Amino acid sequence: MAKKFTTIEEMENDTKILKVKAGEVGIDTWQDRAEQQKNHCQFGEKGICCRNCSMGPCRITPKSPKGICGATAHTIAGRNYLQFAAGGAAAHSDHGREICYTLAETRPDGIYKVKDEAKCISVAKEFGVETEGRDIYDIAHDLAMQGLNEYGKPFGFQTFINRATEERRNKWMELGIAPRAVDHEVTESMHMCHMGVQADPKSFVKQAMRVGLADGWGGSMMGTEFSDIIFGTPSPIETEANLGVLSQDMVNIVVHGHDPSVSEAVAVIAETPEMVAKAKAVGAKGINIVGLCCTSNEVTMRHGIPMVGNFLQQENAILTGAVELIVVDVQCVFPAIGPLSKCFHTKFISTSPKAKIPDSEFILVEPKNAEEAATTIVNTAIENFVNRDASKVFIPEHKEKAKVGYSCEAIIGELDGVTNSFVDEPGTYKPLIECIKAGVLRGAVGIVGCNNPKVRADYSHIGIIKELIKNDIIVVTTGCSAQAAAKAGLMDPEAKELCGDGLKRVCDLVGIPPVLHMGSCVDISRILKLTHTVAKEWGIDVTQLPVVGCAPEWMSQKAVAIANYVVASGLDTYLGIEPQVKGSDEIMHLITDGSREMVGAGYIIEMDPDKLVTAMVDGIEAKRTALNI
Amino acid sequence: MAKKFTTIEEMENDTKILKVKAGEVGIDTWQDRAEQQKNHCQFGEKGICCRNCSMGPCRITPKSPKGICGATAHTIAGRNYLQFAAGGAAAHSDHGREICYTLAETRPDGIYKVKDEAKCISVAKEFGVETEGRDIYDIAHDLAMQGLNEYGKPFGFQTFINRATEERRNKWMELGIAPRAVDHEVTESMHMCHMGVQADPKSFVKQAMRVGLADGWGGSMMGTEFSDIIFGTPSPIETEANLGVLSQDMVNIVVHGHDPSVSEAVAVIAETPEMVAKAKAVGAKGINIVGLCCTSNEVTMRHGIPMVGNFLQQENAILTGAVELIVVDVQCVFPAIGPLSKCFHTKFISTSPKAKIPDSEFILVEPKNAEEAATTIVNTAIENFVNRDASKVFIPEHKEKAKVGYSCEAIIGELDGVTNSFVDEPGTYKPLIECIKAGVLRGAVGIVGCNNPKVRADYSHIGIIKELIKNDIIVVTTGCSAQAAAKAGLMDPEAKELCGDGLKRVCDLVGIPPVLHMGSCVDISRILKLTHTVAKEWGIDVTQLPVVGCAPEWMSQKAVAIANYVVASGLDTYLGIEPQVKGSDEIMHLITDGSREMVGAGYIIEMDPDKLVTAMVDGIEAKRTALNI
Repeated sequence: MAKKFTTIEEMENDTKILKVKAGEVGIDTWQDRAEQQKNHCQFGEKGICCRNCSMGPCRITPKSPKGICGATAHTIAGRNYLQFAAGGAAAHSDHGREICYTLAETRPDGIYKVKDEAKCISVAKEFGVETEGRDIYDIAHDLAMQGLNEYGKPFGFQTFINRATEERRNKWMELGIAPRAVDHEVTESMHMCHMGVQADPKSFVKQAMRVGLADGWGGSMMGTEFSDIIFGTPSPIETEANLGVLSQDMVNIVVHGHDPSVSEAVAVIAETPEMVAKAKAVGAKGINIVGLCCTSNEVTMRHGIPMVGNFLQQENAILTGAVELIVVDVQCVFPAIGPLSKCFHTKFISTSPKAKIPDSEFILVEPKNAEEAATTIVNTAIENFVNRDASKVFIPEHKEKAKVGYSCEAIIGELDGVTNSFVDEPGTYKPLIECIKAGVLRGAVGIVGCNNPKVRADYSHIGIIKELIKNDIIVVTTGCSAQAAAKAGLMDPEAKELCGDGLKRVCDLVGIPPVLHMGSCVDISRILKLTHTVAKEWGIDVTQLPVVGCAPEWMSQKAVAIANYVVASGLDTYLGIEPQVKGSDEIMHLITDGSREMVGAGYIIEMDPDKLVTAMVDGIEAKRTALNI
Repeated sequence: MAKKFTTIEEMENDTKILKVKAGEVGIDTWQDRAEQQKNHCQFGEKGICCRNCSMGPCRITPKSPKGICGATAHTIAGRNYLQFAAGGAAAHSDHGREICYTLAETRPDGIYKVKDEAKCISVAKEFGVETEGRDIYDIAHDLAMQGLNEYGKPFGFQTFINRATEERRNKWMELGIAPRAVDHEVTESMHMCHMGVQADPKSFVKQAMRVGLADGWGGSMMGTEFSDIIFGTPSPIETEANLGVLSQDMVNIVVHGHDPSVSEAVAVIAETPEMVAKAKAVGAKGINIVGLCCTSNEVTMRHGIPMVGNFLQQENAILTGAVELIVVDVQCVFPAIGPLSKCFHTKFISTSPKAKIPDSEFILVEPKNAEEAATTIVNTAIENFVNRDASKVFIPEHKEKAKVGYSCEAIIGELDGVTNSFVDEPGTYKPLIECIKAGVLRGAVGIVGCNNPKVRADYSHIGIIKELIKNDIIVVTTGCSAQAAAKAGLMDPEAKELCGDGLKRVCDLVGIPPVLHMGSCVDISRILKLTHTVAKEWGIDVTQLPVVGCAPEWMSQKAVAIANYVVASGLDTYLGIEPQVKGSDEIMHLITDGSREMVGAGYIIEMDPDKLVTAMVDGIEAKRTALNI
């Protein structure tokens, strides 16, 4: 019997029921607040409000065509756009920095160990760290220092750009956008956005690419690779997704945020027999760790920890009334969780000095005290189980199976399984390239990014993915998009039934779902590595690949940093939410066609998901035509 | 006969005449644009508009008390405040970084040399650079590397905080606001401001102090000290200020911006006999370099180059029709200069890739090509002299004499002149401290910051300074405030006639004006050094000194970075323009009384300059009372 996939309407119905519960306990949710915030200020939405000095704010209108300093709409939109990208690059990269500090604290007997020794050695070699005959922890600690150095070195470029194709590196050098030290790029971006500094539209857009590249090939890529070294490189593993992963009779702990350091420690501690026994002693059947947002992606990729939801589902999880504790680190955490948690028995723990949240209890978690802090957190959750009010509990039943864990290494591993080892060398993407050349697969799309109340939550992610796989386009995904796909069952290998014949055959043969979970948002660096390696093995430029990026429901500054590095790395990027620059035709041109002239790729912006996916399929077919395949 | 000082009304009258000229050539000026931009958006002015993700913009109203993420007015105002401060710290510090790169390029036979060898050696020692028996250029280059390292070192704090009092350092450590690597603080600030990260009002304010301290005791202090090493430590020198410094019969070149590297090169080249001869060959009597904004402060402090004006006078300078060329580097440069320069024969040259400006000609100036580039720039100006249209020229006659160049070293030099060398050790601030203890001087105020069309240009600066010196309070000043004072004649030693008896006696005895020009805005680091050294020599905490800071007409993000480091360094700061946080009583409390609880100093905010100066005098007298002096 054919599999029944959870529909978007079923998910929305669960949300509706939980929204009623919110009303009963007298708390607002994002739906209320989004309604209250309508209509958004058009100066802000168009990028033509400048608040970068206190002469203003200045707003561009036909009657006030310039700011007090003389800045035009183009300069103002450029400032806002660059500042937005810089904020995103700062967030991702600061996350990557914390992973460097964690790597520096790895110990054979500590809670943070070197799990992937092979990756530690290979990455260390890329950074010029001596590896021969050395203790793996000495290598790891030297690598951590080299990594930290990438944030502040006064000369040179990001080490990982050596992974990019030569064509791209030359292009970046030629344009003056090769990324230097990560923090340098952020600071210089902020300097440019200051009153009376940069005023040239093109320079803003170029610097947005540069700070983006410092994120993608710098902070984010270190975040990914060093996390793999510490916590293990993901490999295919089964899990489940959606609110139904919460348990009626276990201690439910939600891990939320982005940096895996806290969630990994919590997961490790929660699995100890001592903790499980404690949970049983209070009447629970055990401890159930589930994840929200990218923290979820990190732990599901490595441990198969279930995904309770993505960005716009964070309040839903608490509204089930079944969560004993939610522990957060950084990014995408609604401050709304504070007052919401007070309406239930849920304990809300914040852990980073960078993200203290009113109405949360703050427990500092650092590499040095992670084990002790995680123990406190898990104990707190267990002790809170008795306070769960059954009358307030509603756990929607929907959940879907998902096969996740597709790091680049894992993908190559799967491809090796179908490589004819008499003819081909294993350890390459050659079988994938052959499939694309043959037309069995038409191409690939990386679908990433957030939810945004400006569009129907998850609707674009799911609709677009379904349409792509039907067209024999394989999908790789990260972040909230990955969770949307998982909730809709699209990471279940059974989803092959939704595919065109070509992709279905590939799924059957290789034993993969048609939508590959590649991790968290920083793991979009995996997609960079994948596409650039494929281009090298194919012998063409990245811009020629029938591969594009798509962020149909993006909302965060990080998404704009990503979009910049994806485009600068040679991949067209399809956006389902408009960047806030519409008030400047110059900036709008520069991030679309203008950027295509500079780096061979640009944005395609389309709010209608049906039109967006059509444009993508057409874009991929055009690339195929150009390649004569 | 008593000196006649230029009045604010006379200056305003000159501006009025030039404004008429602008009308004649059909160009708008800041007065027009400020009028068009009224009334400013109240959400922006109150700090309760959030544009840090694309779910919004969100605005706080009684009907929409939270952003879509749940952020309150306090979180949103906190984000905006920290982001504003981070932008300022980034700008100052990135300027400091360029000076480090320039120091790294000093050569005995180059245009950039080590001019102050003694300072090079003493600062090198602070940074742990070996100095014994080494070539001064080897020392300078090592120091440059150490300086660059301060931007990105993964561990430790800013080296220059060792100059602060022990009490302050301990306070910063205790509060967790001791500044780490400069760029790290900027990036972490931007990370905190990202959607879903920091939400705690106090944490925003603390990080604003931290990123401010990274500016004041990091980027800015390196900017100052390393500039002194390269270009010479300022010592008292005579000059002139106001539009009257432009010449009817010389080639007028305006240097504008902040980084002295470009302007110094231009000044050096313009002085060569070859260039002077060229100027004469085109019918000019010579070459007249004048400065705008902080670039002006840099070159006036070291060469006595006249100051043509401050921030809101930049268009006036061009409107005289007598400027052959304006060359700019970074910061506070109106993009309006582009179209304005097209209305006259004025050539407009931009020189930094960080600040390309539409309608300017871009000539890249880097340490390696500075001599060649400066030669091109000066030649361009000379060649343009013949294009000056006499019918369009109006140079206002007003200008005032000024004695400038009061670095800390210069002040100590002056004090040494009145030290009884039989009793006291020279090379200290002891005579100054004795004067304050005795009540001959009641205290000191550092008046700094910009102009802002929200208040009458220069009116607050000049009015406040006059009132303070009348009350025997000595004034040290930098930036646009210094230029306002100079234009009003308050840096003429004759201004002692405007002082109370005590200050007049000091001026007479020491031979100084009552208002000491300490340099550009980055040179507020000199005021930090001065006050902390005075506190140490006096044996009291900085917070106890009868010394405060004041920014009566501030407008830039840099000013907020400065205000943060001045407060965190222990000095109350009086602001004549409201920080844009009024929509949050929590943030407003935290930057005033709350900050006083944390660091012993805070803001006093008062838009009326008369009330502001009264509050300052009262504040100083209260500090005296507490000291029993």
